[in-house]
Amino acid sequence: MAILAVGSIAFDDIATPFGSKEKLLGGSATYFSLAASYFTEVRVVGVVGEDFALEHEEILLNRGVRTEGIQRAPGKTFHWSGEYGDNLNEAKTRLTELNVFENFRPQIPAEYKESEYLFLANIDPVLQAGVRRQMDGARLVGGDTMNFWIQGKPKELAATLRLIDVLLINDGEAKLLAGDPNLPRAAHRILAKGPKALVIKHGEYGATIFFREGAWGIGRHPFRAPALPLDEVLDPTGAGDSFAGGFMGYIASQGEINREVLKRAMFYGGVMGSFAVERFGTERLRMLTRAEIDARFQLFRELTHLE
Amino acid sequence: MAILAVGSIAFDDIATPFGSKEKLLGGSATYFSLAASYFTEVRVVGVVGEDFALEHEEILLNRGVRTEGIQRAPGKTFHWSGEYGDNLNEAKTRLTELNVFENFRPQIPAEYKESEYLFLANIDPVLQAGVRRQMDGARLVGGDTMNFWIQGKPKELAATLRLIDVLLINDGEAKLLAGDPNLPRAAHRILAKGPKALVIKHGEYGATIFFREGAWGIGRHPFRAPALPLDEVLDPTGAGDSFAGGFMGYIASQGEINREVLKRAMFYGGVMGSFAVERFGTERLRMLTRAEIDARFQLFRELTHLE
Repeated sequence: MAILAVGSIAFDDIATPFGSKEKLLGGSATYFSLAASYFTEVRVVGVVGEDFALEHEEILLNRGVRTEGIQRAPGKTFHWSGEYGDNLNEAKTRLTELNVFENFRPQIPAEYKESEYLFLANIDPVLQAGVRRQMDGARLVGGDTMNFWIQGKPKELAATLRLIDVLLINDGEAKLLAGDPNLPRAAHRILAKGPKALVIKHGEYGATIFFREGAWGIGRHPFRAPALPLDEVLDPTGAGDSFAGGFMGYIASQGEINREVLKRAMFYGGVMGSFAVERFGTERLRMLTRAEIDARFQLFRELTHLE
Repeated sequence: MAILAVGSIAFDDIATPFGSKEKLLGGSATYFSLAASYFTEVRVVGVVGEDFALEHEEILLNRGVRTEGIQRAPGKTFHWSGEYGDNLNEAKTRLTELNVFENFRPQIPAEYKESEYLFLANIDPVLQAGVRRQMDGARLVGGDTMNFWIQGKPKELAATLRLIDVLLINDGEAKLLAGDPNLPRAAHRILAKGPKALVIKHGEYGATIFFREGAWGIGRHPFRAPALPLDEVLDPTGAGDSFAGGFMGYIASQGEINREVLKRAMFYGGVMGSFAVERFGTERLRMLTRAEIDARFQLFRELTHLE
C-alpha cells in the first residue's frame, strides 16, 4: 500500500573527514522516499526552486517515486551546508538558506489522497497538522520533529502529536520534548501526549520502540533493534530519515499492524539507515537491491540474536 | 569453575537525584564478585584498612565469595565520593582518598592459584601484569582499565594487554585507547594489541563484543547485546563491574568457550548491570535469586529478538 511523504527537498553541501561534496540532492523527503521505495510505492510532496533540474527529479523517478506532488516555486531550492567532525555524530551547520522552503504550503494532489500511509517529515508542526487533516483515511501516520519546533512551537507541536500514530525522534529530542533526562520515562511522557508508539533513534546504538498501553493490542513492552557496527561511515546525513523510510516502508508493505510487523520494521529501519551512511548523500540508497537489504537484515539478526 | 577477581574494595559516598548514601561498600572487586557469585565460586584479592569490619566482609561472605585474599593494612580503606547529575550518565568525583589502596600489592593465596578464570579489575596495569604472571594456568583472563592508565601508563598497559584474553571497557575508553573515534575501527585496533576479544560497554545502550580473527574459532562478526530500558536508575555506580561479573561468571559456569557461550555471557552481563543500578550501592546485588536473573535474561531476549 502506498505512502505519502511530505517534507523537505534540499541541496546539501557536505564536508566530512572523508571528503567534501556539493549540491547533493538531500532533504528529509528525499532520503525517506528513496529508502521506502524498496518496500512500496512512495508519493512525495515538497517544494523546489528553479535550480531543481530533471537530473535531480530522476533520482526519485528511477526508484519509482511519484513526483507529481513536487511543487515548483520561483527562486532557489532549500540549501544546507554542514560539516562533520571526527566522530561523525553531530553536524555543524555552516549555512542554511531556506529559499523556497520558507513559504512551503504543502498541496496534496487528488490522486495522492487515498494513500494509506502518511509520513510527516520534520517541517513546521502547523503544516504537518494541515496535511494530516487532508488525509483522513490514512491507516497509519508517522511523524518526525526537531528541537527547533519543540522549543519554538510547543503548542502547535502538541496539537500535531495528537494526530500522529508513530513519532520518530532521537534521544536528545525525546528528552527535550518530555522534559525528562531518563529515556524510558521520557518515552512514556511523550506517549501520554498522543502517539500510539514512539521510536527513539540512538544513532550508532540502534533504536527503541515504546508503545502506549493498549495500542494495537500490542502491550507495553518496548523493543530494541540494533544498529550495525559499521567499519566505515562516510556521511551520516539522512540516516534518521532513511531509518524512517525503511520503517514505514516495511509497515506499508505488510498491510497489517501488529507487534511482529513493527519489530521487523525497526530492523528494516536500522538496515536502511546503515546503508545510507556508507556513501555520500543518497548515493547508496539509489542503487540497492532488495536482496542486499534482506542480507543485511539477516546480518542484523545474527548480530543480536541468541540461538 | 572458580574465578579469581583482583581489584579495589572501597567505601563510597554517593549522591544522585534520588538521594545520598554514605560509606557504602563498593569498589570494582566488590561489584564484580557479587555479580559473578550467582554463577560460580568467586575468590577475591584486594586491600582494606582498619575501618573494614565484619559487617562489610559479610556482604561478600553471604554470597559465598571467598575472602581470605583480602589484605588488611594499617590505615583507612579506599574512599570515593561522587555525585551524579540528572542524566546519571557521568559521575562527578568529589573526593578520592586512595588510603591503603595506594600501596596495594596483590598477593595471591596459594589455594587461589589454581582458579581457572581470572578477572583483573581496573588497577595499575603493572599490578595486573604481575597477577597475571602468577596465574599461568588460567583458561581465560578478563581485564578492565580506564583513561587514567591509558594516558598515564601507555607502555605498561600495552604489555598487560598482551596478557589479557578479553578486555572490557566503555566507548570513551576504547576510542582513547585506539586513538580512533570510529568504534568498530577502534575495536579492531585494540584487538591488534593483544586481546582475543573486546567488550565495549555502551551504558544504557548495551554492549558489543568484537573478536580477533581466529580467536576460539569464532569468526570476526561482532555481537551486540542490549541493555534494558529501565524506568528507574537509582545509582549507576558499579554497573560496569557488575556487567563484567555477570559476563565472566556465566563463562566460568559453562566450562567451554564458544560463540554461543560468549553471546549469552553478554546478555548476562547486561542483566547484572541492570540489576546493579536499581538500588544504591550493592543492595540489589546482594539479594537476587537465580530465577530473577533468568527471568530478566528472558525479558532481554524478548526485548530484542524477532520471532
